[in-house]
Amino acid sequence: MLALAGYPLGINFRFFDPNSGAPVGQLGELIAAPYEDEQALLRFVKDVDVVTYEFESVPLAAASFVAERVRMHPPLRSLEISQDRRREKEMFTRLGIPAAPMREVGSAADLAAAVGAVKYPAIAKTTTLGYDGKGQIALNGAADLAAAEQMLAKGPMIVEERVAFKRELSLLAVRGSSGAAAFYPLTENEHDDGILRVSRAPVNDLQLLGKAVEYAGAILTDLNHVGALALEMFERDGQLLANEIAPRVHNSGHWTIEGAATSQFENHLRAILSLPLGSTTPIGSSVMVNLLGPPPALEDVMRMEGAHVHMYGKAATERRKVGHVTFVGATMEEAMQSAGVLLAMMGERVSAA
Amino acid sequence: MLALAGYPLGINFRFFDPNSGAPVGQLGELIAAPYEDEQALLRFVKDVDVVTYEFESVPLAAASFVAERVRMHPPLRSLEISQDRRREKEMFTRLGIPAAPMREVGSAADLAAAVGAVKYPAIAKTTTLGYDGKGQIALNGAADLAAAEQMLAKGPMIVEERVAFKRELSLLAVRGSSGAAAFYPLTENEHDDGILRVSRAPVNDLQLLGKAVEYAGAILTDLNHVGALALEMFERDGQLLANEIAPRVHNSGHWTIEGAATSQFENHLRAILSLPLGSTTPIGSSVMVNLLGPPPALEDVMRMEGAHVHMYGKAATERRKVGHVTFVGATMEEAMQSAGVLLAMMGERVSAA
Repeated sequence: MLALAGYPLGINFRFFDPNSGAPVGQLGELIAAPYEDEQALLRFVKDVDVVTYEFESVPLAAASFVAERVRMHPPLRSLEISQDRRREKEMFTRLGIPAAPMREVGSAADLAAAVGAVKYPAIAKTTTLGYDGKGQIALNGAADLAAAEQMLAKGPMIVEERVAFKRELSLLAVRGSSGAAAFYPLTENEHDDGILRVSRAPVNDLQLLGKAVEYAGAILTDLNHVGALALEMFERDGQLLANEIAPRVHNSGHWTIEGAATSQFENHLRAILSLPLGSTTPIGSSVMVNLLGPPPALEDVMRMEGAHVHMYGKAATERRKVGHVTFVGATMEEAMQSAGVLLAMMGERVSAA
Repeated sequence: MLALAGYPLGINFRFFDPNSGAPVGQLGELIAAPYEDEQALLRFVKDVDVVTYEFESVPLAAASFVAERVRMHPPLRSLEISQDRRREKEMFTRLGIPAAPMREVGSAADLAAAVGAVKYPAIAKTTTLGYDGKGQIALNGAADLAAAEQMLAKGPMIVEERVAFKRELSLLAVRGSSGAAAFYPLTENEHDDGILRVSRAPVNDLQLLGKAVEYAGAILTDLNHVGALALEMFERDGQLLANEIAPRVHNSGHWTIEGAATSQFENHLRAILSLPLGSTTPIGSSVMVNLLGPPPALEDVMRMEGAHVHMYGKAATERRKVGHVTFVGATMEEAMQSAGVLLAMMGERVSAA
């Protein structure tokens, strides 16, 4: 989606992916090699103006090898912090951004102490490489501790309070190299077993937006971040609690392709190329629905009012994100009407806007 | 632009272009060979579901070689008729679609007779391979006949009345294989020396729209056309006169990328793949400005309110279309305000909306 947004701006692309069958190979030169292959990384950065990433689990060694040789946006620090939940939480605390209480856990004894402090229901998360609900275990009672101990065998984790939230919100921000930043409207997200299922925007709550912009702005500045960054939050009792950051274009911002004056993809590219940022104003109301696993017949989806289909060219395995559909309507009710039909077609429950 | 619209639909592409440096080579497999190279054409059509064209000067022999081997949309007939101004005019006449009076010219004697019948000011056009103002000579008086005779040496032509039009309009239509068609709003176009410079949409004149839909609908049906088709017209005294057709996605429809619910590119692909057509409803008001030759600094353009930049990756030679910018605003006045700044920056006159 970055490349599709970039070609109209006259940008040329080269891609790096360990998987030689990566769909992006259709869209330009693909260098497929392990992240440890320095010769391949050298071929990748050759004559390139700027390197970016759209996946925060890129190994730090590879990213830092690249960043030593060519301009890389967002910076290494954004990647580093987002890869480690402890450092991420420390940053929230340091910047005065409210977040769920958590404890670091390195041993079974730590685990018992952490659960004692945080209380059930809690959630255990690996400190690194978690995404789409992977590396997370719900702790509802002592019966769940065995699974958490098993996960602990693979590396350190954190245990944090499972927030009884009213809703999940995210704010997508973009910061240019001059320091100027732009913010999209707040987006409401629904996850299912850790995987984003539906995003709705704009959420028109100016008080929450103000808080979210304050938090995201502090993070962007602290990281000296250049490019897109998503801040995921919980709303509880009218307050926002930071959950995590993603230092990249984000699934909860996919609706901006049709739903905003400038998409997150174009704005990320503008930011990393020191071009002026584009307007983040929404166009109507948008509902984005992720397609997980084998998608419904696209013909049926295309018949739905306001539907915009985005397939990623990936093989459809169980619960894998293979595409998304954005519904744009004059109102949220209108957009939700079609989205509800798609969700029902996929056998998923429909929640109210 | 077709490919950029098609990848999100999960479509794979292979391209054919006689120029091995064609920018589309960045976006997928490019077979670069002369149109006469049947081996190359065979490689091109191998395992392909459907072939389309976005340039009406594809030699008929190559197109028919392809159409005998694989499904081709739009059909050969659409290509044939749009390549021959005489047959195009005959079609308008047969379908009862008003057009400027014209005479066929095969010899110097014909030329004199044609000018006598049509009267000055007239226009001489080669019957084939004219585009972007090429193959056209304005006949304002006897002094221009020598140039017309010179053009005649290259092949037959037509001489037609130069219509004293109020404005130039185009209608973009898309017809699916089921026969269902969709029509975009009327677009107003300004040409300069035969090259499209500015398009504005929607033109909200329902009476003219009705006539244009009637004419375009008759043409689509007559050609058994599948895909996009543009009908270019003159408005004179509240009537529409057909000028020419383009059996493809059209420059005057580029505004639909941001300015309509579904772009002409996506709808063309939907049509030729027997998928349901998408909504052609406009989003606000759009002004498209072509970038001819070396473009202004893109940074400056990107700063303009509502600007969407599309570069084609082509070398910038004199008066060559190297890209376009679409300005979308809540109103036409708003969109024209930014467009006017760009036109002024390029040293072109600004006309009122």
